[in-house]
Amino acid sequence: MARDDIVERTLGELARQVGGELQGDSDLRISGVAGIEEAQSNEISFVVGPKYVGKAHESKAGALIVPPKLRDLNKSLIITDNPYLAFAKILSIFAPKPRPPLGVSSKAHIGAEVKLGDNVCIHPNVYLGDSAVLGNRVTLHGGVYVGSEVCIGNDSIIYPNVTILDRCIIGDRVIIHSGTVVGSDGFGFAQDGTSYFKIPQVGIVHIDDDVEIGANCTIDRATMGKTWIQRGAKIDNLVQIAHNVVLGEDSIIIAQVGISGSTKVGKNVILAGQVGVTGHLEIGDNVRVGAQSGIAKSIPPGQTVSGSPAISHRTWLKNCQILSRLPELRKKILSLEKRLAAIEQVTDS
Amino acid sequence: MARDDIVERTLGELARQVGGELQGDSDLRISGVAGIEEAQSNEISFVVGPKYVGKAHESKAGALIVPPKLRDLNKSLIITDNPYLAFAKILSIFAPKPRPPLGVSSKAHIGAEVKLGDNVCIHPNVYLGDSAVLGNRVTLHGGVYVGSEVCIGNDSIIYPNVTILDRCIIGDRVIIHSGTVVGSDGFGFAQDGTSYFKIPQVGIVHIDDDVEIGANCTIDRATMGKTWIQRGAKIDNLVQIAHNVVLGEDSIIIAQVGISGSTKVGKNVILAGQVGVTGHLEIGDNVRVGAQSGIAKSIPPGQTVSGSPAISHRTWLKNCQILSRLPELRKKILSLEKRLAAIEQVTDS
Amino acid sequence: MARDDIVERTLGELARQVGGELQGDSDLRISGVAGIEEAQSNEISFVVGPKYVGKAHESKAGALIVPPKLRDLNKSLIITDNPYLAFAKILSIFAPKPRPPLGVSSKAHIGAEVKLGDNVCIHPNVYLGDSAVLGNRVTLHGGVYVGSEVCIGNDSIIYPNVTILDRCIIGDRVIIHSGTVVGSDGFGFAQDGTSYFKIPQVGIVHIDDDVEIGANCTIDRATMGKTWIQRGAKIDNLVQIAHNVVLGEDSIIIAQVGISGSTKVGKNVILAGQVGVTGHLEIGDNVRVGAQSGIAKSIPPGQTVSGSPAISHRTWLKNCQILSRLPELRKKILSLEKRLAAIEQVTDS
Repeated sequence: MARDDIVERTLGELARQVGGELQGDSDLRISGVAGIEEAQSNEISFVVGPKYVGKAHESKAGALIVPPKLRDLNKSLIITDNPYLAFAKILSIFAPKPRPPLGVSSKAHIGAEVKLGDNVCIHPNVYLGDSAVLGNRVTLHGGVYVGSEVCIGNDSIIYPNVTILDRCIIGDRVIIHSGTVVGSDGFGFAQDGTSYFKIPQVGIVHIDDDVEIGANCTIDRATMGKTWIQRGAKIDNLVQIAHNVVLGEDSIIIAQVGISGSTKVGKNVILAGQVGVTGHLEIGDNVRVGAQSGIAKSIPPGQTVSGSPAISHRTWLKNCQILSRLPELRKKILSLEKRLAAIEQVTDS
Repeated sequence: MARDDIVERTLGELARQVGGELQGDSDLRISGVAGIEEAQSNEISFVVGPKYVGKAHESKAGALIVPPKLRDLNKSLIITDNPYLAFAKILSIFAPKPRPPLGVSSKAHIGAEVKLGDNVCIHPNVYLGDSAVLGNRVTLHGGVYVGSEVCIGNDSIIYPNVTILDRCIIGDRVIIHSGTVVGSDGFGFAQDGTSYFKIPQVGIVHIDDDVEIGANCTIDRATMGKTWIQRGAKIDNLVQIAHNVVLGEDSIIIAQVGISGSTKVGKNVILAGQVGVTGHLEIGDNVRVGAQSGIAKSIPPGQTVSGSPAISHRTWLKNCQILSRLPELRKKILSLEKRLAAIEQVTDS
Repeated sequence: MARDDIVERTLGELARQVGGELQGDSDLRISGVAGIEEAQSNEISFVVGPKYVGKAHESKAGALIVPPKLRDLNKSLIITDNPYLAFAKILSIFAPKPRPPLGVSSKAHIGAEVKLGDNVCIHPNVYLGDSAVLGNRVTLHGGVYVGSEVCIGNDSIIYPNVTILDRCIIGDRVIIHSGTVVGSDGFGFAQDGTSYFKIPQVGIVHIDDDVEIGANCTIDRATMGKTWIQRGAKIDNLVQIAHNVVLGEDSIIIAQVGISGSTKVGKNVILAGQVGVTGHLEIGDNVRVGAQSGIAKSIPPGQTVSGSPAISHRTWLKNCQILSRLPELRKKILSLEKRLAAIEQVTDS
């Protein structure tokens, strides 16, 4: 990242770029984005809901991005239905820009018969295997390992110390963060007496366009066929995706989730942190799963579940209330038993 | 992996190689293995149970591997008591073969006084520390770090970006997948007022023959003595093994499990995904632990437990049923209380 | 580590060095530390409590470190209020010493305009980015990636295959174990219809002095501002720290914990293994959280909680007892219902 490329925009320009309504000083010069408490008079900040109106009043920010219901704030404003999205877009404008492509470092290992697109950037200490194919403007940072016959699409960024093993396929505009492993062997063994015989894992991992994968994840190759991460899925850090899993489009997988072999996760699913999913299940589109839940059965589309094993989120919330007073409930039962015994003595006699 | 070495076998040859009974066309030429739905006429697939008989009938596979009870399928068959094992063995025959050993890359760092066996393969960007010892046919893939005085036995494969720290000992035919760390310091601190004093971790990790360790695992060195992974144990991805743990022969540790310091796990144990085990426990031989369970007490051999904290699997299954209707049960109790109070009024009066 | 630097101390010297009371042979020559069962006559071992008195009697150790209440053991002793701390300090004396600094390897990549302190040690296969700053006696082991404009303080040790991304700041005497990623992008996306727009993560990670971070952890950079690990915090392996988290001084985070975005953890907190904490919470000073707990609400200082969702540790312990006999409790309720119905029939008639 270069830090000396100072960017400045007028508030009017910013409003146009995010398709928002301008209120106030169109010529105000903005040179950065900051949190509501840190922002200075040359910076813009954002407020998503009424909860932060107090802080908005006190803020030194030169301007604010707000939803329509906060249009009465006595500030220069960009008004938009989705202030969080506008914030993200404006932050992109001011974010440090990647340095110009450096070409191929002489300190990288470049295998035989590789095909390199235009303006690729291969840093020192990279290993690029034989017959690998890189699209245009691909960046491989230092310490990246790319195996033989791997294909990586245009504009993808592979961060330092990522490992992508033989024959895996990566789409366009994919981002893979440091330490992640794509294409390690699936965990498959056939029992042979008391020992185990390794089942060769001859499939691949296929990652579609616009996927982002966090740091230190593991995505195993398929036993046969492919493990498949579909377009636009976003995966946080330390996530385990086992062999032959299919992860649907625009699904969100939070940190430390584990998905077991051959499970199919639908589109626009959200699995919160530390969720575990057993193998060979189907998780329907738009399913939401609460943090630390354990999924052992398939889930129809649209459901929200929580708990381990997971039940409907509604029941789970009630259970949490009950469990927080479980000792009282038990006492009540024991007392009922006693009182009932007393009555039984009376009615028996 | 080379992909152009096409392998072909007759069905008769395959049946002999896996010790199965041949039924049908002995001369049928098979050139690959595939799933029951994908297999073509020159490929073999497998069916392990009656659940897939329908798909077996519809399959285009040239032949099937089946258990004895499915011998009536109108197909060319290899009949065997363990079709999954036979499938694994046949898949091994057709799996891409590793490339011939490349020798020692000039782009690897080779420390002083190392001992290298015959036909070792050391790829670019490897770091091999001083006085390290590699057996015959050891492969160190790109980006592997092997510390000083590490010993690695014959035929072991260390995948890219693995780290093996000083003095650890690795057996024969061990496979370690990418990103895994062997021999990081155990987590040990002595309280010193409100701060902590680091306890030096001077032991090692000892990994026996035929162990396989998944991607991005962490196996800490012992405080003193050794952390010990015994023969044939199989460890999935993102598993944490703390200092001085002993993991018994042929045990199976699924992804994201954590085992705390000094715990001893027996032989043929299975810990399912995301299980946590506290320190200084003994987990007996043949114990099975359900996914996401929390083990805070030692477990005698042969038991199956689930839950956090873990209880007998049988009780846990009943609890899951009860908890899925806990709000109803609570209502029932409140209703009982009311009804009892009504009676008490009557009987008191 | 060099193994041939044999160290020997008299028991009197050791007692003085740890500020302990000597009992027995002051001139006894000690050349190592070992466990109570393994120690030989030239080694010292330690006993923290009466539980191990039997083993202490049988031990072949030349001397023992013990608390005052065990001063009657018929052995040469170092008596101290904190035997575990004395053990740690004596183990430090005998631990293998790091080799003398090697300087800067010609096989490392050193970026432009870096500043290197005295006696830095940069091993082969390191990537050191442009404008990075290393303090005195910093060690970067093989395969480490240090991004542009990173600062690392005096005496810090970065183990093999660690990744520290652009602009992050690391204090003095920090230890980071292999495979850990510092400064990967926080997981932030703004919903844009059914897809997601990436929120640039322009902040940094700031790690204060005397922090130790285990292997294969992930510590994300802040969206804006900084993710902050404060002085003396100790983090075990495979821990996830999300963007903008603040982790307080001398807190202890055990393996596989995940802390979500913007949560503030106080001082001297202990989070046991596999705990999950949701975002935007405040965990007070001296809070203790049991293994596998799920924290979804802020916790006032000094509390001890357990369970998912977490409740007071006391209630949780009772719940565990009750849940282990939940099927009996349910039967009791059903029986009460039956008995009550019988009585109702009588009293109604």
